[in-house]
Amino acid sequence: MKTKVGIIGGGPSGLLLSQLLHLKGIDNILLEKHSRDYVLGRIRAGVLEHGFAELMREAQCGARMDAEGEIHDGFYIAHDGMRDRVDLKKYTGGNSVVVYGQTEVTRDLYEARDKMGGAVIHEAQDVTPHDLKSDAPYLTYRLGDEPHRIDCDYIIGADGFHGVSRKSIPKDVLTEYEKLYPFGWLGVLSRTKPVSPELIYAKNERGFALCSLRSQVLSRYYIQVPLTDTVEDWSDEAFWDELKRRLPEDVAEGLITGPSIEKSIAPLRSFVAEPMRYGNLFLAGDAAHIVPPTGARGLNSAASDIYYLYHALLDHYQNGDDTGLEEYSQKALARVWKAQRFSWWMTSLLHTFPDSIAYDKRLQQTDLEYLFSSDAAQTSLAENYVGLPF
Amino acid sequence: MKTKVGIIGGGPSGLLLSQLLHLKGIDNILLEKHSRDYVLGRIRAGVLEHGFAELMREAQCGARMDAEGEIHDGFYIAHDGMRDRVDLKKYTGGNSVVVYGQTEVTRDLYEARDKMGGAVIHEAQDVTPHDLKSDAPYLTYRLGDEPHRIDCDYIIGADGFHGVSRKSIPKDVLTEYEKLYPFGWLGVLSRTKPVSPELIYAKNERGFALCSLRSQVLSRYYIQVPLTDTVEDWSDEAFWDELKRRLPEDVAEGLITGPSIEKSIAPLRSFVAEPMRYGNLFLAGDAAHIVPPTGARGLNSAASDIYYLYHALLDHYQNGDDTGLEEYSQKALARVWKAQRFSWWMTSLLHTFPDSIAYDKRLQQTDLEYLFSSDAAQTSLAENYVGLPF
Repeated sequence: MKTKVGIIGGGPSGLLLSQLLHLKGIDNILLEKHSRDYVLGRIRAGVLEHGFAELMREAQCGARMDAEGEIHDGFYIAHDGMRDRVDLKKYTGGNSVVVYGQTEVTRDLYEARDKMGGAVIHEAQDVTPHDLKSDAPYLTYRLGDEPHRIDCDYIIGADGFHGVSRKSIPKDVLTEYEKLYPFGWLGVLSRTKPVSPELIYAKNERGFALCSLRSQVLSRYYIQVPLTDTVEDWSDEAFWDELKRRLPEDVAEGLITGPSIEKSIAPLRSFVAEPMRYGNLFLAGDAAHIVPPTGARGLNSAASDIYYLYHALLDHYQNGDDTGLEEYSQKALARVWKAQRFSWWMTSLLHTFPDSIAYDKRLQQTDLEYLFSSDAAQTSLAENYVGLPF
Repeated sequence: MKTKVGIIGGGPSGLLLSQLLHLKGIDNILLEKHSRDYVLGRIRAGVLEHGFAELMREAQCGARMDAEGEIHDGFYIAHDGMRDRVDLKKYTGGNSVVVYGQTEVTRDLYEARDKMGGAVIHEAQDVTPHDLKSDAPYLTYRLGDEPHRIDCDYIIGADGFHGVSRKSIPKDVLTEYEKLYPFGWLGVLSRTKPVSPELIYAKNERGFALCSLRSQVLSRYYIQVPLTDTVEDWSDEAFWDELKRRLPEDVAEGLITGPSIEKSIAPLRSFVAEPMRYGNLFLAGDAAHIVPPTGARGLNSAASDIYYLYHALLDHYQNGDDTGLEEYSQKALARVWKAQRFSWWMTSLLHTFPDSIAYDKRLQQTDLEYLFSSDAAQTSLAENYVGLPF
């Protein structure tokens, strides 16, 4: 087979790029090693920044998101038994975020790809990129026992942190930056009415907590836990009890609990690989960078890579202009690092760090006091939360 | 002797309060253990925030500051071989700082005290506050062999970090917060024309550097050095060479060097003692808190304590209203901690930390990139640098 753009990875990044390119008549094939059901079974992020929502609309996949997703003009930070609200709309001159689960985004993209007859190949085994430094790179993979090969102009590595794409870049070319946090998030998904129509990020000396949601009937709650904890350590009851302890009283009283329909622990880490281009392979999303979930930058950072790649490939195929491709790594990384910075800042602001000295704790408290005393500080938070300009 | 307010410490804080109270007819006596020449021989800070300058004018001590001090509407941050300017005036709606050495401030205050016949007692030995929890606190001290006693309503402890005031508060009443940085500043004072009319804060992987000044004929330069370094390790020549290496080329080329007239190393540390009131003793300035010099908050934080104390004492003596005195510790500390936060942030932004991992270094770099890409971030920096509202 032959195509212009070979995309590795059937998550939202790969699907979104595939759809956007197809709409502009740019041939592409997407390879995903798992089944569609597997991909749709993953519970992930749910806060889409303005620019991402725009990109979904441009991909003609925004209808259900606009109908069922919720516009959030702000969120709360709970601390010291009370709540302060961050007014995103006010502090960004009218901007906001859309709360719409990654699973739904992915489902909408699959449906759009189906409708257009997009080439999306699931359960592709042993996907391997070849000859990346040449003008004729290609992909090989198996379907069952049957080997396949796709020749392409460019290969997009959107196959996540554990995917083959980044691993195909020689180690001496890549610089990897990593930071581990000494805790994780225990998350519970529950078919209950969310305790608050807007997200509540809660700072508490027992540990951070987050009241999030996917819809008005599907709640997503998190609590900070030590890295040594396992899901088995936490019964539903123990989870709800601990969550309540970390919320202001009036919030805890309103919390509707129910059986968890998903429960998992994710360690918090930051990771960036540089550069994001190697020959004709371009990395996007988790394949190149991971952020802690605080501040919801993960999926949005992936979307910003796709924005740059999409426009770079358009410029190449429509105008013969390779500037975008040449500048991709640099431009994408500049924004990726800003998202890393914001995630680090918000993580540091709200979590309990086991080894922090008394001075650091007071400084952390002061960070919050300064934040809510300063329009400039709230503007800075808001502009990062809704997404910095591309 | 008997007075209303007994002030311990003849640095700028104590003198300023003494002068302000005297102008309002509130009797006070100031005790300083050193000679005036000794106090005036100390080389300290030189950047006064707007509110401090206003307080000097209110104390009728602003004439020489206004004539000889320099209004600075901005400063530079040098990094990666170039300079970005922080436009204080633009980002604070017209605010700025005054560059005028602490030595000059102190000299002006002494002269004003002399003119008014203020009670300023130098070389007071063994100053000791007594009966702080009673309605009749008093101070004892010696002049030579002669013992003295001053009965007063209130005692102000403005006698610096090593002074007797904080040490007079029982240990179980006081909480002390401290943070040490793994480096110091080697400072050189030199009778040379400053390399830049505005301050240059320089981030460099060899370590931080600062080009500051006291006037257009008196330069003050600093370089970050390990805590193990001593002044003897640094000849003038070695200092100038290292400073040049840390500055952008065009700045280094313009640097006029000369013999140092003062050279010293100060370790960077943060310290806060809470509460700032014990009975009828009120702490002010370095007696209660220390900041690293980055961002010039030290003297300015002292001035903000004096602002609160001055108004609290006015309210007490003029209106019989003790609210200000009762809220002093809480109000002063709220602003002190914000200054601590800013000093920590600016120190973290610009210094080289011996144990920082590669990820942290890129994050630090990103902090600068974000700063100069965001009006909100620059506004936040500027509002802290010129001084948050009292």
